[in-house]
Amino acid sequence: MLLKKRISVVYFLNLIKWDIMAIVIYSVLVGMLDHNSFFRDMVIPVSISALIGTLLSLLLAFRTGQSYERWWEARVVWGAIVNDSRTLIRQLIQFIPAGEEKAAHIERFAIRQATWCYALAEGLRRVSPSAITDNYINELGTDSENRPNLLLTRHAEDLAALSAQYKLDANKQVQLDNTIVKLTDAMGKCERIKNTIFPRSYSVMIHFMIYVLMTILPFGLDDNHFLIEIAVSIMIPSLFIAIERTAILMQDPFENKPTDTPMSTLSATIERNLMEMANLPIPHKPTEPDTFYIM
Amino acid sequence: MLLKKRISVVYFLNLIKWDIMAIVIYSVLVGMLDHNSFFRDMVIPVSISALIGTLLSLLLAFRTGQSYERWWEARVVWGAIVNDSRTLIRQLIQFIPAGEEKAAHIERFAIRQATWCYALAEGLRRVSPSAITDNYINELGTDSENRPNLLLTRHAEDLAALSAQYKLDANKQVQLDNTIVKLTDAMGKCERIKNTIFPRSYSVMIHFMIYVLMTILPFGLDDNHFLIEIAVSIMIPSLFIAIERTAILMQDPFENKPTDTPMSTLSATIERNLMEMANLPIPHKPTEPDTFYIM
Amino acid sequence: MLLKKRISVVYFLNLIKWDIMAIVIYSVLVGMLDHNSFFRDMVIPVSISALIGTLLSLLLAFRTGQSYERWWEARVVWGAIVNDSRTLIRQLIQFIPAGEEKAAHIERFAIRQATWCYALAEGLRRVSPSAITDNYINELGTDSENRPNLLLTRHAEDLAALSAQYKLDANKQVQLDNTIVKLTDAMGKCERIKNTIFPRSYSVMIHFMIYVLMTILPFGLDDNHFLIEIAVSIMIPSLFIAIERTAILMQDPFENKPTDTPMSTLSATIERNLMEMANLPIPHKPTEPDTFYIM
Amino acid sequence: MLLKKRISVVYFLNLIKWDIMAIVIYSVLVGMLDHNSFFRDMVIPVSISALIGTLLSLLLAFRTGQSYERWWEARVVWGAIVNDSRTLIRQLIQFIPAGEEKAAHIERFAIRQATWCYALAEGLRRVSPSAITDNYINELGTDSENRPNLLLTRHAEDLAALSAQYKLDANKQVQLDNTIVKLTDAMGKCERIKNTIFPRSYSVMIHFMIYVLMTILPFGLDDNHFLIEIAVSIMIPSLFIAIERTAILMQDPFENKPTDTPMSTLSATIERNLMEMANLPIPHKPTEPDTFYIM
Amino acid sequence: MLLKKRISVVYFLNLIKWDIMAIVIYSVLVGMLDHNSFFRDMVIPVSISALIGTLLSLLLAFRTGQSYERWWEARVVWGAIVNDSRTLIRQLIQFIPAGEEKAAHIERFAIRQATWCYALAEGLRRVSPSAITDNYINELGTDSENRPNLLLTRHAEDLAALSAQYKLDANKQVQLDNTIVKLTDAMGKCERIKNTIFPRSYSVMIHFMIYVLMTILPFGLDDNHFLIEIAVSIMIPSLFIAIERTAILMQDPFENKPTDTPMSTLSATIERNLMEMANLPIPHKPTEPDTFYIM
Repeated sequence: MLLKKRISVVYFLNLIKWDIMAIVIYSVLVGMLDHNSFFRDMVIPVSISALIGTLLSLLLAFRTGQSYERWWEARVVWGAIVNDSRTLIRQLIQFIPAGEEKAAHIERFAIRQATWCYALAEGLRRVSPSAITDNYINELGTDSENRPNLLLTRHAEDLAALSAQYKLDANKQVQLDNTIVKLTDAMGKCERIKNTIFPRSYSVMIHFMIYVLMTILPFGLDDNHFLIEIAVSIMIPSLFIAIERTAILMQDPFENKPTDTPMSTLSATIERNLMEMANLPIPHKPTEPDTFYIM
Repeated sequence: MLLKKRISVVYFLNLIKWDIMAIVIYSVLVGMLDHNSFFRDMVIPVSISALIGTLLSLLLAFRTGQSYERWWEARVVWGAIVNDSRTLIRQLIQFIPAGEEKAAHIERFAIRQATWCYALAEGLRRVSPSAITDNYINELGTDSENRPNLLLTRHAEDLAALSAQYKLDANKQVQLDNTIVKLTDAMGKCERIKNTIFPRSYSVMIHFMIYVLMTILPFGLDDNHFLIEIAVSIMIPSLFIAIERTAILMQDPFENKPTDTPMSTLSATIERNLMEMANLPIPHKPTEPDTFYIM
Repeated sequence: MLLKKRISVVYFLNLIKWDIMAIVIYSVLVGMLDHNSFFRDMVIPVSISALIGTLLSLLLAFRTGQSYERWWEARVVWGAIVNDSRTLIRQLIQFIPAGEEKAAHIERFAIRQATWCYALAEGLRRVSPSAITDNYINELGTDSENRPNLLLTRHAEDLAALSAQYKLDANKQVQLDNTIVKLTDAMGKCERIKNTIFPRSYSVMIHFMIYVLMTILPFGLDDNHFLIEIAVSIMIPSLFIAIERTAILMQDPFENKPTDTPMSTLSATIERNLMEMANLPIPHKPTEPDTFYIM
Repeated sequence: MLLKKRISVVYFLNLIKWDIMAIVIYSVLVGMLDHNSFFRDMVIPVSISALIGTLLSLLLAFRTGQSYERWWEARVVWGAIVNDSRTLIRQLIQFIPAGEEKAAHIERFAIRQATWCYALAEGLRRVSPSAITDNYINELGTDSENRPNLLLTRHAEDLAALSAQYKLDANKQVQLDNTIVKLTDAMGKCERIKNTIFPRSYSVMIHFMIYVLMTILPFGLDDNHFLIEIAVSIMIPSLFIAIERTAILMQDPFENKPTDTPMSTLSATIERNLMEMANLPIPHKPTEPDTFYIM
Repeated sequence: MLLKKRISVVYFLNLIKWDIMAIVIYSVLVGMLDHNSFFRDMVIPVSISALIGTLLSLLLAFRTGQSYERWWEARVVWGAIVNDSRTLIRQLIQFIPAGEEKAAHIERFAIRQATWCYALAEGLRRVSPSAITDNYINELGTDSENRPNLLLTRHAEDLAALSAQYKLDANKQVQLDNTIVKLTDAMGKCERIKNTIFPRSYSVMIHFMIYVLMTILPFGLDDNHFLIEIAVSIMIPSLFIAIERTAILMQDPFENKPTDTPMSTLSATIERNLMEMANLPIPHKPTEPDTFYIM
């Protein structure tokens, strides 16, 4: 996630540099064509460009809105993961009868839950797993292509064993199961956001319209100032492209990019909270990053 | 579902080719009429076209937004089906007491649940049932016009039998029933999206306005360049038609088309997850398709 | 509900014929006034009309969106009624212990639930009750101004009796009650949509602005072509009126009109599903209607 | 709530008469300034006014949408109150074992619940309490600055006593408590809508922009027709003010105005339903009001 | 939170004074450049400015809408905190069996819950803790970097002790836990809104476009009136900046600014309600503030 005070304009310009270059070349070509003898007196009124511009503005505004909603949903789901992780441990504190082993049980769940968060974040980002998850999985002695699902199944098996050991009332078992259900749902929602591509024909359409606008715009401008004509022909489509790119950046919030949901930071926060609740040593707070974003 | 990297422009152009052809013929006719002696000095100011264009852009932007929401809801419902399928098996693992038959029970539910997903997808797409569902239904010895509903009723009867066998606590029975309720709801939501036609008068209105725009636009353009007049008269309505078509593609996400919700792929993923959880052999991952989309 | 393939344009034109007629008369009057000697050189620039047109387009687009949401909510509520009706019977199948009377109990609930759907649909449409509900109420021997509420109370009393007879676990009673609560909520939501008038000042405002636009538009058009001036003055407001009418059609989805939620068809589907689940004879599927819509 | 068939235009015009008067005076002043020698040849192109008009239209359309959502949420909350009131009594019918006192218990809850609705409506409207609530509170012998909260606490205490008397299963106690929780939530939502002022800087901004538009608009109009210039300068801002006022009317739905949520009517309906369910005499249906709205 | 009747225009103008100053300087510079010999005959048609203005208006309208939703969600979450605080105490009144210590238990929870509200508000505003929370934490003898989370854990431990003391039915324990879960969720939602920065590239884009508009606008205006050109070049971007600033004010509702969610006032209301329910002395209502806002 980008931090507030650092400058990300360079990062952003870097992202759209190829688009800008394509627009520059294309605009110069169309601009020269417009000054060519044959097309010289051809005029497409600027109000036609304005009409396409309005339509495109509307579609881009809606598309940006939809991308924002995906980005926000991703953040809401990880907010729910924070809540449900705390709730799971708090419910165990409340429901497991006091006794010698209670601390050990809570500790085991707290560590597994923190590992689950890291494993989910790594799986969504498709990065190679961290030492934390790899060590945990190695100790477990079994692996799966979907590690978070495996860890939730271990939670369920552990809860079944605990229920048998303490003859836990079925109500409490069900209440703990509800929290596991919520974690399953959060995991599935992340997978949905990760795996669902924004409707392709919708994106193609918007991209295509930007090029249409780029083509007809020069024919509506005054032919006396070649440089202004070229400058305007480059600027307007660049703005549209930049907005489209902003929307694309937001719509995929689990791509290991600076605009991501800060899953690593959230997982570290969850780990610190759970360790405190389980009376375990709290890991050091990660130092402020040197880059202009946090993950 | 369309894949990211393959080109679907040809597919898309194919979809709107008849509309484009109608627009071309209509535009040429209106354009010729405008050059006809009688109508030659008739002018409808282009700002009137712009006003209709703005109104149409707004309606189309909202309509695209509503179609996108239907498409997204369909995807959310199938995401919930993934979650609830995993939850059902995980709850059985947690709630059925350890014993000889436990594995067999879980296996039975896992297979029935995977079949339910396939049956639901086939029912929504109105394709002839696959071997998987046909074989299952044949072994069952009874059939229904609504097979997913039949399978859910079998789940319920099986849960009743299990509850009697293990004297399962009522809390746990109710918790398992909650998951069946969620699956019932997901099924009903899919049926709703499938069976509800987008308000007809709304669609007719938008389509009608595109033709109005197509009719008055040529009378606002400069009469000196017949070709440009025709080109613009074809291009503007084509853009509107293309956007309308994009909206129509999105609003019906269970139509066995490339823009569908990828129900077959999701069902296969669910099957693989459930088989792993039930310790059954995991089916081979389906190979990457040769076409540019997945179902 | 309008069907996809039948033409409803005539139906729609019929709906707005009086508005169109009023617009025609008003436009001709204003147009003649504009050609009258006194007002002849009076000009209100067309950009003022465009500004009002943009504002009106925006308000209409939002209003159409809000009407669409009401229409969609009505459909969602009836989708939930389908789900909860199936759930109620499935829960009884799962929770009532096997025995002689079990089938009779389920049958009784299935018939009462199907009747509830018909009674709710008839109450919302304010049509005279069908034979199905009248017969049921007659056998019941008591009536109410709110029949669906009466039937839900009978459900509750019947559940209380069943609970006593089978000493049903309180968890199961509560779970069955949850389904009754959902049906109560669905009924209340339908009543809310039925009884809540769209904010009056909002509608009056939009209607008033269409007439303002109609009044000033002719003064911005070129005075040379009386017929074109009249034609444009009629066409633009007619489009706005048609969109407003479309919104009004959608916002009241329980009015016994072709654009209704298809409550009769949904009730018949529910009845067929419930009869199959209760092992009762399934009523014949209603034949395809001759009209271009289904109710 | 305004009724459909009565005319409320007079009421509405009455509401904005002071705004209109201010606009008229201001517009005449600015119009005269524009004709004054010094400013006579000063021109601000009308496209600048159009740009501000578009921005203002968009903000007003969104603001109207947000006000509509508040108004609709208020209606949804009162719809939920209708449902939960019926549910509370139905659950008591289902859960209290048959016996001598059962009818008396249900009666007590039904009356208290109906009183709660009236007390909530009166509290939200900040009107002096009706005889119904005053009598009830007097009999109770204790009062609170938040009477609905007091009545809910009485519900809870009464449920605790009932539970002790009948040794009610904890599941049923919890299910009844769930309904109390929902009523608490509905009450809190009403308080939130009542007490939350629409963001002040947002409203000030929109109002300020209307005056900016009013100031620059005359300088873009043709100076030849003083009367038309004045008329247009008055009409455009009046339309914007009228829309803003419509939004303000909708955003505060508990203000004892004709555009209110019809809380008194809904409370009367709830009372009639609950009395019927409790077998108490049903109060007479309130007669159709003589005014053009219902409360 | 700003109060309705006080004037906050001065406060608001103060907020944007630096932006306005930057715009004035920049506009004068560009305006002088436009009158400079070299650029004098350079013209960028005003319709290009209008196109950018429309795009910018749309993006700002959506952004304002999204900020409004964040602001409203913050208010909804605190509304839920009001409800759940009341519910927690009401449930204890209903579920704890009558006896000597009952009043003391309820009192303890009521005070801890009121303290939790103050601690959450202070943590979100990052102000130094008030005497109320500091005293409570001191008596507790333990502290945490996340005090609200610590207090919720104390609630859970206290509920576990109560359950053991009164042998509370598991159903009731679970129901009380549900309320703790809701409070945990509310806390997490507040943290999410507080810690999530509005997408940076989105904000940069909008800000950048305002400067683009400011640069090209003077080249489209008539060059005869230098002062009008400057005035318009200052006014239009100032309006856009003011709207952007309004959106920024709304999107961060926990920043200890006048536009905040009134968390202190709500916490005081909650405290008064809980003290009344626990039969404790009710703190004096805070006096009307002298400033034009409440916190």
